[in-house]
Amino acid sequence: MRKQKALSGIRVLDFSRVFAGPAGTQVLGDLGADVIKVGEPRRGDEARYLGVTDEELQTFGGVSPSYLALNRNKRSITLDLASPAGRKAALAMAAKSDVVVHNFRIGAMNRWGLGHEAIKALNASVIYCEFTAYGREGPMAHIGANDLALQAHSGLLSVTGEPGRPPVRVGTAAIDLHGSLALVSAVLAALFHRERTGEGQMIETSLLMSSAHLLSYFYTEYWMEGTVRKPMGTANHLSAPNQVFPTSDGGVVIIAPNDDMWQRCVDALGERSLDRPEFKNVLDRLRRREELVEALSAVTRKLTSREVVERLGAVKVNVAKVHSVGEAADDPQIAAIGGIVTFEADGRPVKAVASPFNLFGTPMSVERPPPGLGADTDEILRDLGFDAGEVAALREQGAFGVKKSA
Amino acid sequence: MRKQKALSGIRVLDFSRVFAGPAGTQVLGDLGADVIKVGEPRRGDEARYLGVTDEELQTFGGVSPSYLALNRNKRSITLDLASPAGRKAALAMAAKSDVVVHNFRIGAMNRWGLGHEAIKALNASVIYCEFTAYGREGPMAHIGANDLALQAHSGLLSVTGEPGRPPVRVGTAAIDLHGSLALVSAVLAALFHRERTGEGQMIETSLLMSSAHLLSYFYTEYWMEGTVRKPMGTANHLSAPNQVFPTSDGGVVIIAPNDDMWQRCVDALGERSLDRPEFKNVLDRLRRREELVEALSAVTRKLTSREVVERLGAVKVNVAKVHSVGEAADDPQIAAIGGIVTFEADGRPVKAVASPFNLFGTPMSVERPPPGLGADTDEILRDLGFDAGEVAALREQGAFGVKKSA
Repeated sequence: MRKQKALSGIRVLDFSRVFAGPAGTQVLGDLGADVIKVGEPRRGDEARYLGVTDEELQTFGGVSPSYLALNRNKRSITLDLASPAGRKAALAMAAKSDVVVHNFRIGAMNRWGLGHEAIKALNASVIYCEFTAYGREGPMAHIGANDLALQAHSGLLSVTGEPGRPPVRVGTAAIDLHGSLALVSAVLAALFHRERTGEGQMIETSLLMSSAHLLSYFYTEYWMEGTVRKPMGTANHLSAPNQVFPTSDGGVVIIAPNDDMWQRCVDALGERSLDRPEFKNVLDRLRRREELVEALSAVTRKLTSREVVERLGAVKVNVAKVHSVGEAADDPQIAAIGGIVTFEADGRPVKAVASPFNLFGTPMSVERPPPGLGADTDEILRDLGFDAGEVAALREQGAFGVKKSA
Repeated sequence: MRKQKALSGIRVLDFSRVFAGPAGTQVLGDLGADVIKVGEPRRGDEARYLGVTDEELQTFGGVSPSYLALNRNKRSITLDLASPAGRKAALAMAAKSDVVVHNFRIGAMNRWGLGHEAIKALNASVIYCEFTAYGREGPMAHIGANDLALQAHSGLLSVTGEPGRPPVRVGTAAIDLHGSLALVSAVLAALFHRERTGEGQMIETSLLMSSAHLLSYFYTEYWMEGTVRKPMGTANHLSAPNQVFPTSDGGVVIIAPNDDMWQRCVDALGERSLDRPEFKNVLDRLRRREELVEALSAVTRKLTSREVVERLGAVKVNVAKVHSVGEAADDPQIAAIGGIVTFEADGRPVKAVASPFNLFGTPMSVERPPPGLGADTDEILRDLGFDAGEVAALREQGAFGVKKSA
């Protein structure tokens, strides 16, 4: 018998599109929830095509790598929310779901009769989750945004880059993905509360809240002291050494935030040039950063990355090789800890990153590859108790995007 | 009467230190859990002092801004885990906790008799959460690491920077903070499962898993196509425009990932130089990125950041001003959505970033400022059912770091 999963029996009706929402509902799906992904007829989630040429889409079986990475363990139905029949079907489905998630602009779901109040009237204990860009209230609530916009707005761009040069983006959609776990956290907290009390509730998260959470300690420092941090390349203001150092074949990061670790680093590298009294104290190392970096670089340059990692790793100094995306993806450690999942999509094997935790008592697994657009429409409706006549009538009325026959 | 919180009545025994673990348990505390932060006598969490001079520590009331930002809604006890009495007290406390969290190196808790099996023997339904750097198994399990090490190892550094220049770090500890929400997600999923079945379990998360999650779509693209992305400054490979553009007083990001949005951008800026057929299709814009950036920059340079944001925001094009940390922290939107909490610590008002979501039925609030080291030792022990004699004996035996009297 298959082991129960943490969210077995929980149904999530998911109207979210592109990155943050779908990444979050994928985690819920990995945990065992029945995630029903609602797509716009014919088009579906825009992430299916994002940044991929037509030729590439052929290679990927018709969808982008990002869609494949973030949409497993979901079923797909198409609903035309511009049609009364589509909205009627959506409402009936929401009435039978434990959790409803959307990331439409503020007001859209209300206009469609799919706001929290409308659904709560049919489903008193529903957990209704809004995922927005800047939140549901305030002067910017109506403004749309994406990951990069929030990297700019939050100040994340302003602390990322080389000193004296323009800012650069965090290379991945960190705010989207952080937001996805904020969504998961909020949904799970609300599910736990509902399990104890029977009460559903409205919950929300936003890219703005996630971006601010990522900058927490920068903001508190600014509020308390007025300090406005600037980018420092790969260094930071907390300690030294704490940055990339060159090696004979690439680079490594070396971080020794306390004096013991620094001494172990000096001893393991065995170079007298580093064993100076003026480097022994963390605050002195911060003050003499430039000098320190020069002295340490002169040592690391003579070694391979592997040599530095082995010597410093052995004495528990924080050290790591600067990997390319390919080296990182192929590094055996992530596979060794269950961090990679595999499945078949359109007859091709696909590898993807697992949800970022393990529950040993209720292990996660891939039950379904990312769905084709609308592939599960009939099965979903049957599971939710729609009878064949109802489905036929809804289809005739254009609920699933098929035009009403002339 | 105070409203029940989502995690009211849940006790979390928290041995974690520095950023990721404490940031995660703070969210659990915000949700209403009783989080008991265990600190090393005299020293406590290293984050208390990180990167702060002695003079600054005076200003901050003895602790760093990052400690203040990430440790509210916790109580503090000191335990000397090097002493048998300290370990005995820890085990007795774990026996009465719902969740135990630690981020010690692999094996340390087992050596102290505080591993999962030992605690489960006394507390069958405990949720035991290990937070590690590279996971609990595999060739790198024994290696310590921190945020920057995982930025390097995961390839995040390799996609962050200007083209043709060295990589730069993501300016904030994004992997630590993402890991904090992975911890929250795992704990909440396990609590939900326990509430339904009575079963506790062992759970884990790691900086490695969180870093891989942040790079999900890069890895899948690499595994499927062999593509190894490189840094592109503030641009990315998914669409164009999708980067920072100069204005007369700073910079803005403009992102128009689809053709409709691009056309609205062109119309709102009202410059014929942008209304070219060769820019109308998203794939053409990607191919002609350089040309497009030049043409759009020529337009934005003549406007203030505010003007660009207003014109493009009004037509729902993704746009945002590049804020400094100070501008971001003081921007009214984050306060408008409940994204800032305030409390008093050591007689000074402190502002900090809220947990990154809202639960409207069970709102979060700050009940306690970040605790002084060991400030709640006696109260905690009393609450957990230790009698005065037991506490006195433990103290005498050095459990809380006070040496046994001669």
